[in-house]
Amino acid sequence: MLDGLTQARGLLFVVSGPSGSGKDTVLEEVEKFFPNLWRCVTTTTRARREGEPEGSYSFVSEAEFRCLVDSDQLLEHAVVHGNYYGTPRKPVLDQLDEGRDVVLKIDVQGAASVKRAMPDAIMIFIVPPSFAVLEQRLRGRGTDPEDVVQRRLADARGEVSLASSYDYIVCNDHVADAADRLRSIIVAEHCKVVR
Amino acid sequence: MLDGLTQARGLLFVVSGPSGSGKDTVLEEVEKFFPNLWRCVTTTTRARREGEPEGSYSFVSEAEFRCLVDSDQLLEHAVVHGNYYGTPRKPVLDQLDEGRDVVLKIDVQGAASVKRAMPDAIMIFIVPPSFAVLEQRLRGRGTDPEDVVQRRLADARGEVSLASSYDYIVCNDHVADAADRLRSIIVAEHCKVVR
Repeated sequence: MLDGLTQARGLLFVVSGPSGSGKDTVLEEVEKFFPNLWRCVTTTTRARREGEPEGSYSFVSEAEFRCLVDSDQLLEHAVVHGNYYGTPRKPVLDQLDEGRDVVLKIDVQGAASVKRAMPDAIMIFIVPPSFAVLEQRLRGRGTDPEDVVQRRLADARGEVSLASSYDYIVCNDHVADAADRLRSIIVAEHCKVVR
Repeated sequence: MLDGLTQARGLLFVVSGPSGSGKDTVLEEVEKFFPNLWRCVTTTTRARREGEPEGSYSFVSEAEFRCLVDSDQLLEHAVVHGNYYGTPRKPVLDQLDEGRDVVLKIDVQGAASVKRAMPDAIMIFIVPPSFAVLEQRLRGRGTDPEDVVQRRLADARGEVSLASSYDYIVCNDHVADAADRLRSIIVAEHCKVVR
């Protein structure tokens, strides 16, 4: 009765947030609700962290990364903390065309590039409830030396100042509540009227 | 850490949908999740239906209604099926100022007036999954004579054609699913970044 008023194509959700904001945990919770949601695997030159699952990133060498950039196979790419990160173009477009929602978990620079390339992207910024909590989480992780923790905290201040360019802000005070907010955004966006 | 980026004032949700779309049932479900959500009681000159709870509308005479209109106490008013319906202005503004969300359940004419008066209003249209289901529900209610059912069906076609001017469309296929969609819209709107 309302054909064409809501989106049939998949929706593209871009999720950013400082290191330690809990993006991954929140996304894992949300994915339980949407078996059809496709999370794009980011390509990176950074070293795999101890205990990090193999599929969490596509780990490549700098030479391989340059090749992907030169052959225009990346939707966006950026340098974060001295490492390259990029989003493969083709799989994202294919999933959207097939009507499947796509989630890109990317940093603020990459997010801005995606928004320029795909203006319909829905931009979501996940924040910890406070900088004090963020510091606590980064130290609690115990994987990074002090100078890395300090750099991540400084970066976080810069990133949070860009949150106002996003469409939504999800406060990750409690994982279940943050996941419910993100889930709600996805459900609501599917009810939006297409102009 | 993000003061001023999300709305502190209450949000105004305008909910419309044809007779028989199940607006009331869906709203009742959603209200269970948000004890702070304030549903504005519409003022009307129409007769109270058998079994209809007293507080569902503020029932007034035509003379009383005219007095409210003349003294500018209504945010909007409209004639639907030959009866007057109106939204009292002051209680709505007071609740929003106090940071409480407000829901107005009003017809498409009234909704358009509210949107003009309050451009930040979030417009939600509830639809039955099909006209066949709508007809079934209107007859099932058993309260309206045949000519009223026919008029409501004709009106529904006109109203649904205006759905594209709303922000969101909620399909009421199953009450629990429709309530989850409406609830999600409310949660998501609270995560929206204020421009």
